Amino acid sequence: MAHKHGHGRERIQFVNAEDKQEFSKYPTKAGRRSLSRSISQSSTDSYSSAASYTDSSDDETSPRDKTQVNSQGSSDFCVKNIKQAEFGRREIEIAEQDMSALISLRKRAQGEKPLAGAKIVGCTHITAQTAVLIETLVALGAQCRWTACNIYSTQNEVAAALAEIGVPVFAWKGETEDDFWWCIDSCVNTDGWQTNMILDDGGDLTHWVYKKYPSVFKKVRGIVEESVTGVHRLYQLSKAGKLSVPAMNVNDSVTKQKFDNLYCCRESILDGLKRTTDIMFGGKQVVVCGYGEVGKGCCTALKALGAIVCITEIDPICALQACMDGFRVVKLSEVIRQMDVVITCTGNKNVVTREQLDRMKNGCIVCNMGHSNTEIDVASLRSPELTWERVRSQVDHIIWPDGKRVVLLAEGRLLNLSCSTVPTFVLSITATTQALALIELFNAPEGRYKQDVYLLPKKMDEYVASLHLPNFDAHLTELSDEQAKYMGLNKNGPFKPNYYRY
Amino acid sequence: MAHKHGHGRERIQFVNAEDKQEFSKYPTKAGRRSLSRSISQSSTDSYSSAASYTDSSDDETSPRDKTQVNSQGSSDFCVKNIKQAEFGRREIEIAEQDMSALISLRKRAQGEKPLAGAKIVGCTHITAQTAVLIETLVALGAQCRWTACNIYSTQNEVAAALAEIGVPVFAWKGETEDDFWWCIDSCVNTDGWQTNMILDDGGDLTHWVYKKYPSVFKKVRGIVEESVTGVHRLYQLSKAGKLSVPAMNVNDSVTKQKFDNLYCCRESILDGLKRTTDIMFGGKQVVVCGYGEVGKGCCTALKALGAIVCITEIDPICALQACMDGFRVVKLSEVIRQMDVVITCTGNKNVVTREQLDRMKNGCIVCNMGHSNTEIDVASLRSPELTWERVRSQVDHIIWPDGKRVVLLAEGRLLNLSCSTVPTFVLSITATTQALALIELFNAPEGRYKQDVYLLPKKMDEYVASLHLPNFDAHLTELSDEQAKYMGLNKNGPFKPNYYRY
Amino acid sequence: MAHKHGHGRERIQFVNAEDKQEFSKYPTKAGRRSLSRSISQSSTDSYSSAASYTDSSDDETSPRDKTQVNSQGSSDFCVKNIKQAEFGRREIEIAEQDMSALISLRKRAQGEKPLAGAKIVGCTHITAQTAVLIETLVALGAQCRWTACNIYSTQNEVAAALAEIGVPVFAWKGETEDDFWWCIDSCVNTDGWQTNMILDDGGDLTHWVYKKYPSVFKKVRGIVEESVTGVHRLYQLSKAGKLSVPAMNVNDSVTKQKFDNLYCCRESILDGLKRTTDIMFGGKQVVVCGYGEVGKGCCTALKALGAIVCITEIDPICALQACMDGFRVVKLSEVIRQMDVVITCTGNKNVVTREQLDRMKNGCIVCNMGHSNTEIDVASLRSPELTWERVRSQVDHIIWPDGKRVVLLAEGRLLNLSCSTVPTFVLSITATTQALALIELFNAPEGRYKQDVYLLPKKMDEYVASLHLPNFDAHLTELSDEQAKYMGLNKNGPFKPNYYRY
Amino acid sequence: MAHKHGHGRERIQFVNAEDKQEFSKYPTKAGRRSLSRSISQSSTDSYSSAASYTDSSDDETSPRDKTQVNSQGSSDFCVKNIKQAEFGRREIEIAEQDMSALISLRKRAQGEKPLAGAKIVGCTHITAQTAVLIETLVALGAQCRWTACNIYSTQNEVAAALAEIGVPVFAWKGETEDDFWWCIDSCVNTDGWQTNMILDDGGDLTHWVYKKYPSVFKKVRGIVEESVTGVHRLYQLSKAGKLSVPAMNVNDSVTKQKFDNLYCCRESILDGLKRTTDIMFGGKQVVVCGYGEVGKGCCTALKALGAIVCITEIDPICALQACMDGFRVVKLSEVIRQMDVVITCTGNKNVVTREQLDRMKNGCIVCNMGHSNTEIDVASLRSPELTWERVRSQVDHIIWPDGKRVVLLAEGRLLNLSCSTVPTFVLSITATTQALALIELFNAPEGRYKQDVYLLPKKMDEYVASLHLPNFDAHLTELSDEQAKYMGLNKNGPFKPNYYRY
Repeated sequence: MAHKHGHGRERIQFVNAEDKQEFSKYPTKAGRRSLSRSISQSSTDSYSSAASYTDSSDDETSPRDKTQVNSQGSSDFCVKNIKQAEFGRREIEIAEQDMSALISLRKRAQGEKPLAGAKIVGCTHITAQTAVLIETLVALGAQCRWTACNIYSTQNEVAAALAEIGVPVFAWKGETEDDFWWCIDSCVNTDGWQTNMILDDGGDLTHWVYKKYPSVFKKVRGIVEESVTGVHRLYQLSKAGKLSVPAMNVNDSVTKQKFDNLYCCRESILDGLKRTTDIMFGGKQVVVCGYGEVGKGCCTALKALGAIVCITEIDPICALQACMDGFRVVKLSEVIRQMDVVITCTGNKNVVTREQLDRMKNGCIVCNMGHSNTEIDVASLRSPELTWERVRSQVDHIIWPDGKRVVLLAEGRLLNLSCSTVPTFVLSITATTQALALIELFNAPEGRYKQDVYLLPKKMDEYVASLHLPNFDAHLTELSDEQAKYMGLNKNGPFKPNYYRY
Repeated sequence: MAHKHGHGRERIQFVNAEDKQEFSKYPTKAGRRSLSRSISQSSTDSYSSAASYTDSSDDETSPRDKTQVNSQGSSDFCVKNIKQAEFGRREIEIAEQDMSALISLRKRAQGEKPLAGAKIVGCTHITAQTAVLIETLVALGAQCRWTACNIYSTQNEVAAALAEIGVPVFAWKGETEDDFWWCIDSCVNTDGWQTNMILDDGGDLTHWVYKKYPSVFKKVRGIVEESVTGVHRLYQLSKAGKLSVPAMNVNDSVTKQKFDNLYCCRESILDGLKRTTDIMFGGKQVVVCGYGEVGKGCCTALKALGAIVCITEIDPICALQACMDGFRVVKLSEVIRQMDVVITCTGNKNVVTREQLDRMKNGCIVCNMGHSNTEIDVASLRSPELTWERVRSQVDHIIWPDGKRVVLLAEGRLLNLSCSTVPTFVLSITATTQALALIELFNAPEGRYKQDVYLLPKKMDEYVASLHLPNFDAHLTELSDEQAKYMGLNKNGPFKPNYYRY
Repeated sequence: MAHKHGHGRERIQFVNAEDKQEFSKYPTKAGRRSLSRSISQSSTDSYSSAASYTDSSDDETSPRDKTQVNSQGSSDFCVKNIKQAEFGRREIEIAEQDMSALISLRKRAQGEKPLAGAKIVGCTHITAQTAVLIETLVALGAQCRWTACNIYSTQNEVAAALAEIGVPVFAWKGETEDDFWWCIDSCVNTDGWQTNMILDDGGDLTHWVYKKYPSVFKKVRGIVEESVTGVHRLYQLSKAGKLSVPAMNVNDSVTKQKFDNLYCCRESILDGLKRTTDIMFGGKQVVVCGYGEVGKGCCTALKALGAIVCITEIDPICALQACMDGFRVVKLSEVIRQMDVVITCTGNKNVVTREQLDRMKNGCIVCNMGHSNTEIDVASLRSPELTWERVRSQVDHIIWPDGKRVVLLAEGRLLNLSCSTVPTFVLSITATTQALALIELFNAPEGRYKQDVYLLPKKMDEYVASLHLPNFDAHLTELSDEQAKYMGLNKNGPFKPNYYRY
Repeated sequence: MAHKHGHGRERIQFVNAEDKQEFSKYPTKAGRRSLSRSISQSSTDSYSSAASYTDSSDDETSPRDKTQVNSQGSSDFCVKNIKQAEFGRREIEIAEQDMSALISLRKRAQGEKPLAGAKIVGCTHITAQTAVLIETLVALGAQCRWTACNIYSTQNEVAAALAEIGVPVFAWKGETEDDFWWCIDSCVNTDGWQTNMILDDGGDLTHWVYKKYPSVFKKVRGIVEESVTGVHRLYQLSKAGKLSVPAMNVNDSVTKQKFDNLYCCRESILDGLKRTTDIMFGGKQVVVCGYGEVGKGCCTALKALGAIVCITEIDPICALQACMDGFRVVKLSEVIRQMDVVITCTGNKNVVTREQLDRMKNGCIVCNMGHSNTEIDVASLRSPELTWERVRSQVDHIIWPDGKRVVLLAEGRLLNLSCSTVPTFVLSITATTQALALIELFNAPEGRYKQDVYLLPKKMDEYVASLHLPNFDAHLTELSDEQAKYMGLNKNGPFKPNYYRY
């Protein structure tokens, strides 16, 4: 069975031919993997360390075999250990500090309870940040049931804290694949409660409902989907005429995109390289393959710290931008011998070939910041003449017969998910976007949304941004009536046409 | 009659009620002015100085009253002085050095003569750069007749050089308004030659043909329009169902936009301020109103030179970008007292009000980089209690009764058109885009283009970019067959979807 | 007894009144602490993690109570476990990759063996990087005996690897204070071998020899000292007329200073903040107290990543530099309420007072990059009305009665030593400088150096730099004879006067 | 006779063998030229344009042949035209706006009149900025007589304005060499007034007094000298034991150096290139020869605007800095074929050779920002096979037989003096330093200064900086008593040791 959001060494493989079969109507394994990129996944990694003290319990009993009761007497949940609730609560409180947009949304919308009556089933990573989202939805009037979109990413303490306040959570770290679907099923299939909204990350929940409980969709007002993979599956459903409710693609909102790509990569490339290799950036020769938003973010940060950066590109427009931004545009083969660091951000495969790996100099660091695990031809390095030496977590030295070492990070998987953390602020953007999408779909007048996939309306995208401005003590200017008229704009936005490039 | 592209102090006013009337079906005077922004206009200014030695001729005779013959014996042209051809030729040669994309286009397309049979009437600024474009069109097989889109912007020597090699040019610096329309008419209305392509900058030529020779459009395969104003007029024609041929909006191509806005402003804001005020940038407190492409360009350059920059914005998404890029987002009134420089880039009106001008500190510099002449409320400064002192060309000191001086640049008009130059490279992007648009429309199979306004196809936009990469010695990477298949792309592009944000 | 180089929570306190007494002739405890800043100390921290797998041995026996023999049959050493030598060797090999300057020095000077006859006693941190230095000294002809300058910083495996190849090393991680002096004594006090060179880091070795074996100095040709503390003690000895041999202050060489301060802080401020707090830099309001080299490094990096940085300064020249570099110069009290991050780099005390800590906003991060542990008045925070909560290693939340949290890093100690790593390249600069200083002192003709403290000659400083240029594939230009004559320079340097500011 | 400060095409050559002879005791012609670099010289150029309207008078009469009287009835002056005083006054007022440090110095020191009794003879460029200095000296109690240090640099209107308020000025634009010395003589040699202070720029005044009126030095309390040339001459005098009074070298004060070099070049390199060539910086490949302060300033600005910059260096320490700052260090010959722009900042000769000029690509721009006129081997370009074409003022195309053009700016002279302006703020730093140096020397107690050349005391250097901080609204922090004691500093400075590198 596939969990496309697996991370690092823990990535699980398809083990069951039948399950594989079952998914074949949807994106293929390869396709999904090449697309999968949801920043929130990294919460796995950052959590792992943060919560390690409480997690090393010897309790090997499966949560499914235990009966637990929260302090209100309810046992409608299944988590690792309800007693960890207090610790989880503190994690949530810390996350709240950087998610003031959601807190402010709670305050603004609390009076009117815009989600009163909403029965939301959610399937996402279960982290402190997600908890802030869930508790916001509850504060706005919704009832929620929640499960995990990844078998490894659940913060057990946070799940316990949610269960403790009465949110039925079915998730723990280290689920089996059977557990995974059992948890989803437990969320959906419950007596006397029928979901009318779905919040999904990856499309597994949506898929399960389609397979097992298609009639549920009669009551569902909409699906909100965050991941590239899940969005892809929705568009395919829509294309096939099988999408029976409106769906909101929050992955492609402007605000989320800029933060997930340009800004997040600008922040995390340095961190990912430093934590793994303690490299000094000054004077390093770096080639960045691809000058899209991810590449632009990486290049900005590296150049700023004194690296000498050049670019490879296939698209002449992006290449021209690189030139104007002060980066030489080269072919990889022309420079590969001189480089200290090679970073891929193309979304393509075999961007760094074995032949090029052979020509790298001793000590060259190779890593991937792009969507695809196959940008670096890592498979070609698993050959008998080369020796692999694991020198740190996520760091392998590949040693050539002549003693040359190439330093491969995260085995070619996404560096910033594997080796650095994602700021809570970035997750706040996503969570706020999800909350607004739910409110919009739930409250939309009949007919505004058809059985199709929609982007968040520009105005709500702007609203997400505006909720985050107070973090920066930023003061927005308001149009005068005269100016609004002159510009042909509504004073409250939207302020730009849909095609505006930002 | 309106010449919306006038510059600086020479701006001409509507003088003829009838002419004014005549235009009223098209964009109103105010609307057009607020929109008008064609970078090539600045060639006026840069030329002015460059050619001043030859231009101070005492010859007051109107070119219309003289008979001139070029060395081939032709007199089918009307320029100031055909004898200046040699000097003009040198100017053209210098321009060619920075327009290698067009030269390369000549070479690539010369064999097949893709414009063989094209009869192009053009109405643009007549500068050395335009001449390189015209001679490229000729080299590709076209016949051309040309006139000026602005009564002041013609480089007389260049016009002479074109006439000398046999291009019928009707244009000189300092035309009257009657001359202006006479020249256009002379281009279009000629025996035994009927245009089948129109290249326009501002829409006056198109308008004239619509008014006087509507039947011409039966043969015309398309219109290529560069300016915001002209494009606006075309969309209005289209909306009104009056556009009888396909038109190409080259103003909004990605490459042109980035160069006209982000990159061009990054280059010119420093230049414009320095040439007018000799200001030192280090440590200056600057507020930039508007964080669109123009504002982003200005902020990047100023911050890089050590200025301390803050931003005003109405759009929360742009405001959030400003925050992430390291600029404080403020309201103008909060900071106005401390600022050393105030720059407007909003496209809006009265962004800087008289009340704010009153509160500025002594020596504060105020200027406009945006579309509109009314971003700064300059009109409010023309009041009896304030003294205006012209201290240099384009620089006025406005003196308050208490002695405070505010330094106003270019009377609030576009600073970079008035007070700095536009690199030939930027003009090369535009000219190449125009040439490709002409080729596309002229060769398009029947039915590809309807009677509507089109954007340049993405692939041709990419081609324009690729023609300019050799200037930077940039080496593009080519997709392998396997990679192209994996990405679902054609190896030759287009490489991005239309909505891609770059 | 004082070990001024202790780190993090492991900092040891004076426990023995007598030992304390003994040092009182030298810098006072406070004085030494405020001065102490030797970058190499951080090797402690970076090591801790790197070697943790092998270190968790249950062996509680003191190395002093064990008899160990290396494979050559020697037992003239005392390390934790000689069997760890192989693992240590690999660590040394990895370090060698980034210390090519020393390797190249080995090659250049190996023929002539410039240290033949040198008997060096060294007292430094014992890390892989130090091992590369020691093995270089051996390769150049020296005999070496080594001990640790810090009771916690020894990498046991590296010590074992050195002992294995026959270098008498007396050091292990977790020495008692008695062990510490016993190890020093074992290095110096050995039959049939008398040191003639001293390499010290902190001055403890030098002090011990002065106290116990003053006659040794009759044969000693010089002392090389790296740390601020040790240099301070040497200058005091010199001032008191008690310095009986030449000493070389390598701490203040230009190359080392720039790397230890400007460049190293530019690299490490981001890393230190990220690893501890996962903060997003974009848009953060940061005040940096002090605009010396350390402050300049911090500001450069933070501004580059999108933070909005302002400065406090007492020195008008540095303040003017900050202005020109684009930073607002403020008083801390003016801005303290708005700041997201407060960083001290002044070398002064009580730069951040309790009163200012009281006024910080919720979530404000406070840390120190400067010499002194007392820049932030941390002591004032240890009061009953405030709650301390340790949320991660090196991260405390200080909680005010109203719930406000201030995030204090490393309890106000040096952030980059506590919470980030120092690139091997920086350590390479220092080690190369030490090696050249030893060569210079050992080979200097009689009379070149008196009983005084010297800076490394400019020419050798330049040589250190030149040995590191190949790391960057940098190609130096050589003066022609004519040019050298014109400039009045020797073609081989020195190229600048001593007072040149770089 | 030599005027080493001549500019641009107007540079005068030695014409008189005797005069040449006379100077031979002092720096040789070549030596002086290679050293000469006084920023204030550029006031010549900036003025030239600014005042051109009033200057085109037909009055060919030599000022020496006219009798003029100011409105107070005095004729103790010799200027071009006393009637231009009013226009000059306005120029002075404008300059005052950016020289608030001097105005503030007037206010602070006016009560005590620290220059009461001072009789100052000055020989400097006579510009609006100098006038602000002179009027400050007068306000502080001094009597002044003034002459020009350059035969072309006098702003006639400013000279008139000074004469009008009673300062005896002897200077006009376009003096002959005989006039030059006559003016100096008229300043010094006047009945009933004997100078006791000298302010010199270039050393000509000092030289004249030494030659003609050596006895004057009995009363002179000191010489203040600003230029590299003049300082060099003073050090030679001192070395030769011929300096009979104290002299203050203000050229080498920290504040002045940073502004004249790093900051000023950062500001002016872009301006100089843009005004001459309208070059677009984005993506241009630039090599900067020399990474001293001038080179660092140029590189910072160019990189910030998107140029791709590499460096040549002879000094490994500067080269290592370049690496860490993100610039490739190359030999000129390795990259010369690819470069778009070549900039010299070495102070050396023949840094760009004919052989390298031969290999440059078509359109390459070559210019000099360094001290020496001979950094580019311009002489080698004056050979018959090459054609020179002057395309603009200060811009020559050198055309090779195959048609290749190299664009040479300012004939290899200092670009920023020839082709850009120097901000008044930079001149304010220098002028304030001069004023303080005069005050210090005039008031120093007997014995503080011997017959030697001194640097401005660190504390006064800091004071100059502090007087300029209000321009940036910068707020300095004051040490508490406790902090000052801890640091061992006086609360009022000096704050750094003399060798501090800033």
